[in-house]
Order: sequence, then C-alpha cells, then structure tokens
Amino acid sequence: MAARAWPGVIEHYRRLLPVSDATPRITLLEGNTPLIPSAHLAERLGPGVRLLFKYEGVNPTCSFKDRGMTMAVSKAVEEGATATICASTGNTSAAAAAYCARAGIQSVVLIPDGYVALGKLAQALAYGARTIAVDGDFDACLRLVREISDNYAVALVNSLNPFRIQGQKTAAFEVCDALGAPPEFHALPVGNAGNITSYWLGYCEYREQGVTDRLPHMLGFQAAGAAPIVTGGRVDKPETLATAIRIGNPARWEEASRAIEESAGRIEAVSDDEIVAAYRELSSVEGIFCEPASAASYAGLKKLAAEGFFGSRRCTVVATLTGHGLKDPDRAVATAAEPEQAPDDIDAIVEMLGLA
Amino acid sequence: MAARAWPGVIEHYRRLLPVSDATPRITLLEGNTPLIPSAHLAERLGPGVRLLFKYEGVNPTCSFKDRGMTMAVSKAVEEGATATICASTGNTSAAAAAYCARAGIQSVVLIPDGYVALGKLAQALAYGARTIAVDGDFDACLRLVREISDNYAVALVNSLNPFRIQGQKTAAFEVCDALGAPPEFHALPVGNAGNITSYWLGYCEYREQGVTDRLPHMLGFQAAGAAPIVTGGRVDKPETLATAIRIGNPARWEEASRAIEESAGRIEAVSDDEIVAAYRELSSVEGIFCEPASAASYAGLKKLAAEGFFGSRRCTVVATLTGHGLKDPDRAVATAAEPEQAPDDIDAIVEMLGLA
Repeated sequence: MAARAWPGVIEHYRRLLPVSDATPRITLLEGNTPLIPSAHLAERLGPGVRLLFKYEGVNPTCSFKDRGMTMAVSKAVEEGATATICASTGNTSAAAAAYCARAGIQSVVLIPDGYVALGKLAQALAYGARTIAVDGDFDACLRLVREISDNYAVALVNSLNPFRIQGQKTAAFEVCDALGAPPEFHALPVGNAGNITSYWLGYCEYREQGVTDRLPHMLGFQAAGAAPIVTGGRVDKPETLATAIRIGNPARWEEASRAIEESAGRIEAVSDDEIVAAYRELSSVEGIFCEPASAASYAGLKKLAAEGFFGSRRCTVVATLTGHGLKDPDRAVATAAEPEQAPDDIDAIVEMLGLA
Repeated sequence: MAARAWPGVIEHYRRLLPVSDATPRITLLEGNTPLIPSAHLAERLGPGVRLLFKYEGVNPTCSFKDRGMTMAVSKAVEEGATATICASTGNTSAAAAAYCARAGIQSVVLIPDGYVALGKLAQALAYGARTIAVDGDFDACLRLVREISDNYAVALVNSLNPFRIQGQKTAAFEVCDALGAPPEFHALPVGNAGNITSYWLGYCEYREQGVTDRLPHMLGFQAAGAAPIVTGGRVDKPETLATAIRIGNPARWEEASRAIEESAGRIEAVSDDEIVAAYRELSSVEGIFCEPASAASYAGLKKLAAEGFFGSRRCTVVATLTGHGLKDPDRAVATAAEPEQAPDDIDAIVEMLGLA
C-alpha cells in the first residue's frame, strides 16, 4: 500500500507560497480542516442557500492562526531568528508558542501587567512561551515588540508579519479544492482583518493561476462595539464579548476595505446579543462548537437573510468559524443551563424525559 | 477542477463498517487526524526510534470519541431512537451531545448530583445536552441509563455500545494509510480500554483484508492509581489526575487483555508524576497540547525506553494522543509558570531575554 498523508499547508501549497527548498517546514500538520455542510441552519437563510462551515477550530492550537504561524515561524527560522515576539493574549500567542516549541526557538509574549487573566494565557504557557507582564498598557507592549524585533534577531509575529497572510490564504485554496469551485459568498468575522485579507488573496491567486474561473463576494462582520471599518472611524475603547475581534484599529483595515470593494461584498456590524444567539445555535443545532467571535460570521448571515439579501436565489455560502469553543470555556459555562435534578428513580426520569 | 474532500469516517471506510445505504451519515467530518512526526522527543527513546503522534485532539469535539459517536448516533437514528443516553462527565458526553445535535435528536446525560463541576459539563451543555443530576452515585447513574435504554427508544451510547468500537477502529486504518504500513509498536492510554480494543480490531481487519501484511505490538498504559489490568484486580476507588482514564473496572478489560496477548505487547502503569512530565514535554518540546490522560502513552514509552526496551533497534512507534489540552484548562493553569514582571523599558526587557 502507498503512503499518503497531509503534510501541512506549506508543503501542500508550496508552489503558491514564498518558500524555497531552503525554508524549513516547521509544521504541526495544520490546515486540511473540514468544510462541514450545514445540517439545519441553511434553510433559515433562504430556500436556495447551500451553507458550509469552514471549521478552523480543529487546527492544532484550535484556531486559524496556525496557518499563518507555520509560515511566520518557518521564515523566522530560515532568516536566523532565535526567538519570536508578539504582544497578544489570545490565539496568536498560543499559535506562536506552539510553533516555536516545534522549531526549538524561544517564544516571547508581552502582555500589559494586571490586564490578562492567567486562564487566557494558559495555552501559550503550556507551549513554553516566556511571558512578560509589562508595567504599561497594550500600546506600550506593541511599541516594545516592534523596537525589539527591529534591533535584534527576534522575529515579530504580530499581525504585521506578512508571512501570516501568506499562510492564511491557504484556507481559501482548501475551500475551492473541497467544493471544486469558489462559493458565491464567503462570510468571515473581522477584527484585525488579516483573515478576510488572506482569503481574498487566496481566491484571487487561484483565479490568476487558472485553478478557478471566478471570485466570491466577501462578507465581513464586525462586533457592533468594535466596528471601525463599518463606521469608518477608529474605536478607542472597543467593547465586545467576542474578544478575538475586539479591535479598534485593524492592522489590515485598508486591505479588508479593498477586498470588500473589489469583490462587491458587504461589511456589517452584529451586536453581542446576535453573536451569542448565533454561537448557541451553531453548537446546539449544528453540533459545531466555536468561540464567540467565530459566530459573528453566521450572525451576520442571519442578519443579511432577515433583510432579504438571499431571497430565493440559489447560491453556495461558506462561513469561516475561526476558533474552537474550548478556547473560551467561561463563555460556555456562562451560557449553559444548570443540570436538572432528579431522584434515583427510573419512573421519575422517564416522566421528565417524556418517555412514559 | 474536481472536488475532493474528506467525508467523515463512516463514508470513507464504509466497506469496513457495519453500515448500509439505509444508515444515515450523522457526521461532523471527524477523523482524518494528523499523524505528527516527533521533532525532538523520538531521540530520547532510542537512536533508531521513529516516533509519530496520532493527534486525536483535533477531532470536532476535541477527542477520539467522535469516531465512535458518529457510528453510535448514526445507528441509533437508523434504528429509530429519538434520544441517546449515557452516564458520563467527560469526552463521551460532549461527543454524544454534538452528534445528537447534528442528528436533531435529544442527548440525555446522567451525572451524580454534586459530584461534577459545571466546567466539565460545559461542552456537553453547549451542544444542547439535557443533563440530569441524579440523587445517587455513578453506579446508580449507570444502572438507570441501562434500564432506560432497555425499555424505551433511547440508545445507550456508553462504552458498551458496540458501534463505538467500530467507529474507533478507523484510527488504525488511518495510521496504516498514512504510513503505508502498520507501525512496529502502537502506544495508547488505557482507561475503559475501548480504544486499545478498537485499534487492535482495526489493525487485524486491515491485515485480514490484505491491505497490510503484518500487525503492530500494542503497548497499553494505565495510570498507576487506576491500573486494574496491570495489577489484575478491580480498583474500587481509582485515583489519578488523568481523569479520562480514571477507571477501576474497564468495560473492555477482556478485549484489551486479548489485544496485548495476541500482539505480543505490553501493559504497564505510569505514575501521575510521569504523566504530568510527559504532558509538559509534549506541549513545550513538540508543540502538541493534549489532555493529561493522553500523555500516558508517551509517559509509558519513556518508561519502556529507560528499561532498555528499544535499545538500538530501528522501529516505527505511533503514540495516540486521545484528546486536546484545552479539554482540561485547569490543569494547564496549574502547571504553568506565572508571567515574569518587567518595566516599560526596552533595555530591561532585552537584558531579561539575554539579547543584550
């Protein structure tokens, strides 16, 4: 029998990535994530809607950031870095720490002192990140990581790292490879806007290469309390429970706006209530547990559907779910009902369950 | 371009599973999990050891249970069940709830009242399980779920469900498909012993079918405080921090013993300290974050290696990591170091990092 196995996104898509034989493949076999057809929710959007979820929560660190980080860390190692650095408390720091462990280099994470709960950092710490609580705010941390990476052999792996976009674009390739064509619409949560930028780049490159012959409309959804692209103005104190998209001044603002414009897409805001409702529907109706920010993509689709956006048109819609629900267990607990109580008695339980 | 996408374990391996065209495919596209080559730890086992990790944490509910549950719930629906029931507080209840949500049937989970923290149940609750806290102990819950499933159209999805073994055997198929042959050794954590039973069944079936031409030696590892198969006697109060294998009287004891014997394998106990050390090494050295019970497989390999088991022999060893580290965030926090403190000053941080 012949061996065949997914080799990770760099190796699988190497012809479309800025790598050479000299680039080490620092991989945890990220990517190749499932494109799960909606079992129940598609019909709520419209009679002709075929809806699929690109479930990025089943990457090795449980978010889409792994696609970008395999590239960022591989290039850092190629360029001789002995460490990476970032200011992040969430999915970026977890992914950076995992790939640095794999590469055998140090991962440094700067956080504002007193601002971040240890639980949020637990994953990065498990992967062996060296975490430094700085006596300053988040902007101070951002300034420090830039200065350090400018002056030492330490690679910056924040959103500004261009290789992350390159790695993340592979998700668009996978969607096309799985469907045999691009969808008509692709819905995404938008925070720093790196992911919508990446998908658009991927879709455009596949068309340029002649792999596909058209492009999707990109649909971006921000949280209402952190919607600078929607409102057209930087948000100084962004507020949303969807922490992964709580960004007031997106690093890829311009690129995201261009993706929306060039694709004849839409960018809209969804409220926290709409996000939580979508989050609960995805897990309890589809059986797909994602982090709250991920649910913004489906929340946005519901909102568009309510406005008659889909009508009776036949179309394929892909919604990216960026991270796994286990990333935010506190939200799951806060949202869950308490168990019911019952005596140790079969008749009582049978009656509770309506089986009698 | 032609579409190609992983269809889930039932569809992919349907010829080797007890399904027909009449069996619905209740799937979250589980399986197809990465077989990650060790980057650093293999050499600690022996100079000729090729070590790979079958990383089951990247299944949809973040554990290997999804393989069995897609089968169990699909067969339950085929047979007309309107609900499933189990007594479980961990990975089984999460997987059951997810697949029942997908199938549009009720998932019922019985737990002993006052015994289980809400955080442990959060995932099952997110998927919409109906959770009932029974005024009794775990044995009472087990008795109730059996009685209810014997008398009503409610499918029992505890370890006794035979279809779970069928679904779980697909992991062995995937290992063979990825390597082009079975490994010489396959290491697994052993709790209820369903997984070692399943892998052995899968390896044997692939050889019977002529897909492969030999079998691996099965290496099973129990936690020292919950090691009935190793000691040869039921453990009334099993104790280990590796909760997923805290079982005193395994449901598949006999089958597991047979797998060890027929494969000329080994079953050994590892201490909680050894499990935690392995857990930390896997995440901080390999970049693979698993739940503590998962690490028993690598802890056991280290123990065998220390006894000279591998010597200088050339062999391929696969270790299954059964669940993702995010399943047990409290353990990650408990194991993690606190962040270091630093002033908002580049020189100070550069010196801390040894870059100056």
